[in-house]
Amino acid sequence: MLTHIRSVALGRKPADLLLQNGRVVDVLTETIYEADVALADGRIAAVLPAGTPCEAAEIIDLAGAYVAPGLINAHCHVESSMAAPESYCAEELRWGVTTLITDPHEIANVAGAEGIRYMLRAGRQMPLNYYVELPSCVPATPWEHAGCVMEAAAIAELLEEPGVLGLGEMMNVPGVLHNDAEVLAKLRLFLKAGRIVDGHAPLLTGRELQAYAASGISTDHEVVSWEEAKEKLRAGLAVLVREGSASKNLRAILQGAVSEGIATRNFAFCTDDKHLADIRREGTIRHCVRQAVALGLPPAKALAIASINAAQIYGLRRLGAIAPGWQADIVVFKNLQDFEPLRVFHQGRDAWAVCAEIKPVTPPAVLRGSVRPAPFSAADFSLSKFLPDKEYPVIKMLPDNICTERGSIQGCEIASALAAGKLHLIAVLERHHGTGHLGLGLLQGYGLSDGAAATTVAHDSHNLIVAGTDPDAMAIAAQELVRVQGGYTLVQNGKVAGTVPLNICGLMSSADTENLIKSLENIAALAHAQGVPKNIDPFVSLSFMALPVIPRLRITDMGLFDVDKFQFVEGMGA
Amino acid sequence: MLTHIRSVALGRKPADLLLQNGRVVDVLTETIYEADVALADGRIAAVLPAGTPCEAAEIIDLAGAYVAPGLINAHCHVESSMAAPESYCAEELRWGVTTLITDPHEIANVAGAEGIRYMLRAGRQMPLNYYVELPSCVPATPWEHAGCVMEAAAIAELLEEPGVLGLGEMMNVPGVLHNDAEVLAKLRLFLKAGRIVDGHAPLLTGRELQAYAASGISTDHEVVSWEEAKEKLRAGLAVLVREGSASKNLRAILQGAVSEGIATRNFAFCTDDKHLADIRREGTIRHCVRQAVALGLPPAKALAIASINAAQIYGLRRLGAIAPGWQADIVVFKNLQDFEPLRVFHQGRDAWAVCAEIKPVTPPAVLRGSVRPAPFSAADFSLSKFLPDKEYPVIKMLPDNICTERGSIQGCEIASALAAGKLHLIAVLERHHGTGHLGLGLLQGYGLSDGAAATTVAHDSHNLIVAGTDPDAMAIAAQELVRVQGGYTLVQNGKVAGTVPLNICGLMSSADTENLIKSLENIAALAHAQGVPKNIDPFVSLSFMALPVIPRLRITDMGLFDVDKFQFVEGMGA
Repeated sequence: MLTHIRSVALGRKPADLLLQNGRVVDVLTETIYEADVALADGRIAAVLPAGTPCEAAEIIDLAGAYVAPGLINAHCHVESSMAAPESYCAEELRWGVTTLITDPHEIANVAGAEGIRYMLRAGRQMPLNYYVELPSCVPATPWEHAGCVMEAAAIAELLEEPGVLGLGEMMNVPGVLHNDAEVLAKLRLFLKAGRIVDGHAPLLTGRELQAYAASGISTDHEVVSWEEAKEKLRAGLAVLVREGSASKNLRAILQGAVSEGIATRNFAFCTDDKHLADIRREGTIRHCVRQAVALGLPPAKALAIASINAAQIYGLRRLGAIAPGWQADIVVFKNLQDFEPLRVFHQGRDAWAVCAEIKPVTPPAVLRGSVRPAPFSAADFSLSKFLPDKEYPVIKMLPDNICTERGSIQGCEIASALAAGKLHLIAVLERHHGTGHLGLGLLQGYGLSDGAAATTVAHDSHNLIVAGTDPDAMAIAAQELVRVQGGYTLVQNGKVAGTVPLNICGLMSSADTENLIKSLENIAALAHAQGVPKNIDPFVSLSFMALPVIPRLRITDMGLFDVDKFQFVEGMGA
Repeated sequence: MLTHIRSVALGRKPADLLLQNGRVVDVLTETIYEADVALADGRIAAVLPAGTPCEAAEIIDLAGAYVAPGLINAHCHVESSMAAPESYCAEELRWGVTTLITDPHEIANVAGAEGIRYMLRAGRQMPLNYYVELPSCVPATPWEHAGCVMEAAAIAELLEEPGVLGLGEMMNVPGVLHNDAEVLAKLRLFLKAGRIVDGHAPLLTGRELQAYAASGISTDHEVVSWEEAKEKLRAGLAVLVREGSASKNLRAILQGAVSEGIATRNFAFCTDDKHLADIRREGTIRHCVRQAVALGLPPAKALAIASINAAQIYGLRRLGAIAPGWQADIVVFKNLQDFEPLRVFHQGRDAWAVCAEIKPVTPPAVLRGSVRPAPFSAADFSLSKFLPDKEYPVIKMLPDNICTERGSIQGCEIASALAAGKLHLIAVLERHHGTGHLGLGLLQGYGLSDGAAATTVAHDSHNLIVAGTDPDAMAIAAQELVRVQGGYTLVQNGKVAGTVPLNICGLMSSADTENLIKSLENIAALAHAQGVPKNIDPFVSLSFMALPVIPRLRITDMGLFDVDKFQFVEGMGA
């Protein structure tokens, strides 16, 4: 193969494709220069002085546009887009990302290895480099039942799957610091194999940060401030600067970096969680690059962060630059202000054209039948579960914030508060193994004036969450999600008012992107019309009510959980 | 092991060593900050704010000195120092180098795999990271007989030896460009195994450079100008900026880089060939860093080139920075102007103290008995080999230059020119396998007024070179080198006037460094006193007369070689 590439470089054989009259953004020297780029066998064969005679099967005149390496999204969860991997990848490609490093943490919580294998199969057929970091924390906590428990042995079986790079974000920081045997077994497995281990260490600092970094962990994407970034970079961690739908950390970090003029070699860009509509509107890493340049970073340096830096951090050789012998992953930008992609190539092929031809993988039946709670009825959500003379804690939703506060109410006041739409019942039903685990609690601030809303996207174990003004509506909503095998649904006046089926594990939809975005917008609009305040996302906010690691009060299938005390509320949980 | 390091980081267990009150040079962010550095189990356990309480078995107060990562010499030939590996490494450590990437090309030309294994064994016991790039071109050319022929299969056997990194400098540029089967087999072997391949491409440019780089070659240390550096960096090659005894390229390259302000991520520093006395006087990479700073590079950036850059280029993880979990390879500098090392640590141990305790490996007998020419006598160098009525080419040595010019002389004039000391006989004897191959020619400009000089260091095949004013003196000199089994020798008035034995393959000496430097200085002084001009190094210049790849006329054991025509001179060679 290299023999042919050499012949093309030497001008003895025609190139497959010649990109003429472009300006190459060289992220290795951070310089920009005029050149023609000859491709062969999926690689860059030669970067030639503009106008060098060069035969090619196809010639594209770039008329001064910029030839940059394909962008790298260094950390994302495809499932968070709710699109199937193929649709997600197509959106990334639309905006110039040719390498994706994804942690299929969400699907693993539902379907374990089977889910991960599906994500690999679906992603790998796309015209981008689809790399997987294996989920390190399934389930994420011991206070909920997930669809799967993945211990070191289960993960080891996936280590040699093509596309698997390393171990996904190690969220169990206490487990690392206190030598939890299972956590150490996972770290050992990957470090011994020379693989990378991603971190997840929000606000970790001082000696604990030093100990965490000393454990062989290489990255962190949870950094929210410049001071935190500097401390983590100095601790040897690569900082994956995150700009997602909810968490936007780029400005805070890069403003500091620019003003102090530090070396940026250990920065990369990532999204972590970004919604489909947001990606369609502005892209992912392209949006990061654009913002970085607006903050004062030279374009070639911003593009270096978006390409070669991530490649080096993850040990991907000959990826992330425009140079002979390197993989021909290329994005052509119209200019270096708004970074609008004109063309995207993966391994030398027109990635957009290839996308259009791809038939999505059909998810295995088990992934399409993942909503299997034990039989339930309205009685399971009955008000009779609350004693009139007892005081009960209430989960208070906050606007524009996934944290909650803790309120309280007397048992005898619950019925009238529900009737007035000032309080809601909230339940989490174990939906993976039909065990019948069901947590029931009270919710304030959701605003739904009547009926119920339900979702099978429920971080991190993805049980079935349903919230409503009365038990009957809640039962109808939950039944609807069993019927469609997962998704979002809204009940009004005792009837289903709208449903977005998420047929793949109750997390992702096989619908096409345009329709999926519209359905999601429609059901959110319906919910807002039904009373959910504008500053609360009707389904996304709901899906975080079951995440027992974020303050202060949460509900899981095992009951009401007090995050401050790290234990279930007495009398209301396991 | 990591469990203990974590405990130290957390302050639960005492560190092995605490470096207090230092200023850490962080090459990842290129910033410098005050901190205490705690070491445990050969790694950095924690970098703590200065003054943090931290128990330790030993505490060193650095009083404001600079704590930098141990330096990396990215490309060198240990044999060129003529010191045994242990002595060479001790000199490197004296000046702060804790990682050495060496290509045992010279010893491989004498003793093949046996020689490489000895270099690995000897180097690996030293307190530094001793990495070997396997020689790619043994013999270097088809126009001479080396001690060994190493084809791909022979190299493959060494691939898994501990310490072996990749393939050494691929000097056979035409072989790469014209798809020589043996060259391609070697490239494939290393690239398939995910190993690095070093380049060697003096002045290669344009399409040929593109083709060479596209072949999977990663580095080049032959760059002599800024323009050449820029083209090669853009071609994706790491430029190993060389500052050796003869080739000094740093100033030309870095001046350009500084003035254009390009990114320096793909620069590293190396020496290629540096003499022992030069190293003792000024060090290797420390000398590069000092010069780079004098040229205007910020100290932290210059140190980054000297450490983390090389580590990343060669894929060495957790090496080359001061950060928790990274290998505790540290050099403490008094200041950031002259970069005088105050202390050097390798894997947390005081490297200088460890050096003092090490007993050198005894080279295997075959390496100590490597000078085995077929029987010879003065008659083999006889004037009668030259016909009086024929014109003969003459190798003209040039001052301060290893290139030669081509002169000529009539056969009938040779005797008187020899007698007047204006001409010398020069012979190369195959010395590895007793084949009796012997090339005889004429040399001008060497200046020796009487007697003969001989050496078994004879690039690249290291046969026995002897030059003199008469056949008898030459025979005595050559015999002396057989007697001592290699080295330098000088004959005056029919007797050996001085000898420096190089008992290891006729290339390196087991003598201690101080004595070896003195002996080398003494014999050179003797030769100068005997007439060799000041601007010709009596033995080093002689050793290059057998290298048939440098213009214009050379002599090998196969005869007189015309480098311009790439063929032997008619009637004077194979």
